[in-house]
Amino acid sequence: MSDTSLTQLPEPTLRRLPWYLAFLTTLRHSDVEYVSSTRIAAEVGVDSSQIAKDLSFLNIRGKTRIGYEVAALEQTLRAFLGFDARHNAVVVGAGSLGTALMADRGLHPYGLNIVAGFDTDPAVIGTDKAGVRVYSMDRLREIARRRDVTIGIVTVPFEFAQEVADQIMDAGINAIWNFTPRRISVRKGVVAQNTSLYSHLAVMYNRLRNVEGKNGEDGR
Amino acid sequence: MSDTSLTQLPEPTLRRLPWYLAFLTTLRHSDVEYVSSTRIAAEVGVDSSQIAKDLSFLNIRGKTRIGYEVAALEQTLRAFLGFDARHNAVVVGAGSLGTALMADRGLHPYGLNIVAGFDTDPAVIGTDKAGVRVYSMDRLREIARRRDVTIGIVTVPFEFAQEVADQIMDAGINAIWNFTPRRISVRKGVVAQNTSLYSHLAVMYNRLRNVEGKNGEDGR
Repeated sequence: MSDTSLTQLPEPTLRRLPWYLAFLTTLRHSDVEYVSSTRIAAEVGVDSSQIAKDLSFLNIRGKTRIGYEVAALEQTLRAFLGFDARHNAVVVGAGSLGTALMADRGLHPYGLNIVAGFDTDPAVIGTDKAGVRVYSMDRLREIARRRDVTIGIVTVPFEFAQEVADQIMDAGINAIWNFTPRRISVRKGVVAQNTSLYSHLAVMYNRLRNVEGKNGEDGR
Repeated sequence: MSDTSLTQLPEPTLRRLPWYLAFLTTLRHSDVEYVSSTRIAAEVGVDSSQIAKDLSFLNIRGKTRIGYEVAALEQTLRAFLGFDARHNAVVVGAGSLGTALMADRGLHPYGLNIVAGFDTDPAVIGTDKAGVRVYSMDRLREIARRRDVTIGIVTVPFEFAQEVADQIMDAGINAIWNFTPRRISVRKGVVAQNTSLYSHLAVMYNRLRNVEGKNGEDGR
């Protein structure tokens, strides 16, 4: 495979690239034409040599003294990250968080297209949540195939996370975005991404207690 | 400070602890009384020696051959992680994602209590979003003080992320939960947590392309 998009990029690089993209978009909105890695570094809080290294994965190099062309780099990054393509997804678990994700149109410009919801609750099945139709679980396979679904988003209570992940894989969906605080096991060739808001809360609470503890000690 | 909750725990440990907690809750629901670190390891996908090390930060050690007491460990973990306490938060940016977070009651059992929203849009100010009142930005400081707000959640368009973060810090709020794809700088003594859904999408899309590329090669 010579296509660079198929390179197995380090995950930290993949996580940082959207930060650079966001900053580039801001610059373009301000009609800035060129930007140095030093400037990106100062804004984004990443070492400039790291930025140059991250961007080299895309075969992009800045020009000496001029830097990177903002619009071109933004466009290349967007395409490279897959934000220009459409990725059809289903949400399994049309509860509070699931409905929130279906209602959130903010991920649409990043290529995420939620085409259906799934639930086990008869009161919810057949209704529309934020304009997205909710189906019973036994229709997952059929709809996944028909709508060319590649991503299954898991927002069920955590006790059911693995069971639902298995059903998503059985339906031929190759990527699972897990929002539950439960780890899930996936089969070979299936991609799993965990977004644990609870873990982030845990880190934040702990750091906050440290801050408050210190402020208290200082008599502030 | 002898209180272990004020120890500066490694972030990876803090991120893993909620996974153990979720599994312990599942076990308690199934009336399981004791669990070994080996069993937790198998379920959660973390090495058992790592689990023992993580739990030792809480001064918890399992008993030989019996393991950990499920209910006691669950309770200790919940309290340690701050999920039992109430942390008042505001959401700045009552758009799509902000409203979704206000509507999502799933974080409430984890101690997150969203008391108000803020926005600059006159059409939104003064309305209720998912039962949460939205105020104009100039009332941030007053409401933060009155409601004892410790967390500011940033869900504005990324161009305004830093400006809003500054306003949150000016209002005396010491933790910022940033959902924008833009990095923000915080002052000393202020805690920042980034939850970049876009970064997670980028990782998922890239891995998915690899999988699809490989499956294509195999002729599957």
